[in-house]
Amino acid sequence: MASPHQAEIAEAYRTIQRDICAEIARVDGKADFIKDEWMRPEGGGGLSRILVNGDALEKAGVNFSAVDGVLTPEMSKNLKVEGGNFFATGVSIVMHPFNPFVPIIHMNIRYFELDNGTYWFGGGIDLTPHYVDADDAHFFHKTLKATCDRFDPGYFPRFKNWADDYFYNEHRKETRGIGGIFYDHLSEDATHTKTDLFNFSLALGQLFPALYSKLIEKNRSKPFSESEKHWQYLRRGRYVEFNLIYDRGTRFGLQSNGRVESILMSLPAEARWDYNHQPAEESAEAETLSLLRKGIDWI
Amino acid sequence: MASPHQAEIAEAYRTIQRDICAEIARVDGKADFIKDEWMRPEGGGGLSRILVNGDALEKAGVNFSAVDGVLTPEMSKNLKVEGGNFFATGVSIVMHPFNPFVPIIHMNIRYFELDNGTYWFGGGIDLTPHYVDADDAHFFHKTLKATCDRFDPGYFPRFKNWADDYFYNEHRKETRGIGGIFYDHLSEDATHTKTDLFNFSLALGQLFPALYSKLIEKNRSKPFSESEKHWQYLRRGRYVEFNLIYDRGTRFGLQSNGRVESILMSLPAEARWDYNHQPAEESAEAETLSLLRKGIDWI
Repeated sequence: MASPHQAEIAEAYRTIQRDICAEIARVDGKADFIKDEWMRPEGGGGLSRILVNGDALEKAGVNFSAVDGVLTPEMSKNLKVEGGNFFATGVSIVMHPFNPFVPIIHMNIRYFELDNGTYWFGGGIDLTPHYVDADDAHFFHKTLKATCDRFDPGYFPRFKNWADDYFYNEHRKETRGIGGIFYDHLSEDATHTKTDLFNFSLALGQLFPALYSKLIEKNRSKPFSESEKHWQYLRRGRYVEFNLIYDRGTRFGLQSNGRVESILMSLPAEARWDYNHQPAEESAEAETLSLLRKGIDWI
Repeated sequence: MASPHQAEIAEAYRTIQRDICAEIARVDGKADFIKDEWMRPEGGGGLSRILVNGDALEKAGVNFSAVDGVLTPEMSKNLKVEGGNFFATGVSIVMHPFNPFVPIIHMNIRYFELDNGTYWFGGGIDLTPHYVDADDAHFFHKTLKATCDRFDPGYFPRFKNWADDYFYNEHRKETRGIGGIFYDHLSEDATHTKTDLFNFSLALGQLFPALYSKLIEKNRSKPFSESEKHWQYLRRGRYVEFNLIYDRGTRFGLQSNGRVESILMSLPAEARWDYNHQPAEESAEAETLSLLRKGIDWI
């Protein structure tokens, strides 16, 4: 089988986007994803799909893009190459539920190629519960591990640590959530063809709806109090902090004149910041905070 | 009169903080500023004062700090010096009102000194109305100009442009609000002594309560609708974007292990992000957006 090319990868990612939206809208049961097609003046474009005010989901975005063009000086510097053209395609997802017992989820799969023949895959899936539930965390990590293991038994431990390091609010000294997997700059080597790496990214995309549906279904009808809702808004504030301060995709997108609304669809509808909020000792909120650290083996 | 020294400047700034809090709490009429004293492990400390759930103000922070220590490698690099010790003191303010017709305000005055004898003053005041009111904008800029003119007729035009450039959400291509003044790296020259520059910063600090009180009093009782409140939350979202993505003080503070809660007290209690929100044509919201650009002569 020949190595997958740009158009084939982009087409498969677009299909992933379509399938995820169809399945998540079905599970939500109330609202559907609108479609916003956009062009990038410098080359390529994308399709943003947004669901708001559903039954389970308050705001969910699934973005597909396939862009190309000349490397900017800043991109060349970051990539340590002498200019040239690039192609990039990917799917990015963030979903914010209403119920504070349903976690926020994020997924990204992406492919990048330079006209000198260099290419790589990157991506990840991570979970940000407002309240950490050990069973959900176990299920989430175990499911990710099973998919990783089909491609390489070394993937999960490596990519799990990478996620712990990446999804980290350094100034708060806390992880964004319970992590998951993160990987970047994967290209073919002695044990993985380009097709393997492509298939790995597709497997993550295909896994997503089942993974998140299960967490939605399990938790969407749990009763919650006003103070639990308040806590959810505070945790969303931390999510905003991570995305605007650290997230490479967000910062790169904003700096490179990307489509602002597609980049910032990751932000929650509503978020809060209370000065020096400290949860009561031994509360569920304090318990969650104590679990927002690197290196926990959730399996 | 001898040039003012570290302790004298810090003491005067602490007095500015005290006077501002007293006057703003009096105008608010319901809540007072709590006091949080903090130490910086590497040297110095500060006093954060926060008022929440007042009558006019939902969340207002007035922070004083006076810190010192060894320049970190990153600071040395930014300052283009070969290490050594520094001293920094300042007052930082952000106030978020309840009523969407009362603007958000920000002020900062600061003094920085290196042990090689170099020093400079920086600061600024800028206004972020949720709804731009031409009379308020005129009053705000005219009052700032009058204070600037007492020290140098060249200050206002120069510092007004500087504010337009600084308080700018590049990715949105919109100014944060209607600007004001911003200045940095002011040190003595042929026409200004160090005492002059110090007094200029004090004049801004002394001006603040009267300036903001007038805007509070004029607008605090205006009736507003749910959709105007909604718009306020969206504009607060933009404020969060500016502070987390661009604001040098915020980014420097977070990167240099500053006290997170004192740095992020600038964030509003509640903020919103709606995907691709577009105000109706010829609405007051659209009018406000059209005025969020550089170079408007508000006087």
